[in-house]
Amino acid sequence: MTTSTYTVVGMTCGHCVSSVREEVGRIDGVTQVDVDLANGAVDVTSDAPLTDDAVRAAVEEAGYQLAGS
Amino acid sequence: MTTSTYTVVGMTCGHCVSSVREEVGRIDGVTQVDVDLANGAVDVTSDAPLTDDAVRAAVEEAGYQLAGS
Repeated sequence: MTTSTYTVVGMTCGHCVSSVREEVGRIDGVTQVDVDLANGAVDVTSDAPLTDDAVRAAVEEAGYQLAGS
Repeated sequence: MTTSTYTVVGMTCGHCVSSVREEVGRIDGVTQVDVDLANGAVDVTSDAPLTDDAVRAAVEEAGYQLAGS
């Protein structure tokens, strides 16, 4: 079990949080996604370590971006 | 056919726009809802005039408020 924290930019409301949670939650092996709207922190828990590319793709699919990408 | 413009506060993103459009669009007689996120303007077109209460209730159901209410 691994938990990594990413920073997502562009989320403005609870709908945005739901979109990110949904897309990131679809990544294979992800068991939990916690999003803090105020600071953009997204904690992703998974059975095995994820690649940043997989998380970035899911965040972008939701319509947002990882900080620094 | 009547078109009235309301101002909705609290919308921050496209998801918010969709929520307001959906709820207001459910009011009996409403045929079109146009939302301008930037200024909160919501143009509601309907077969017959609507009560402000009906529009206010729909906006609040979506999670937002009419300006001044």
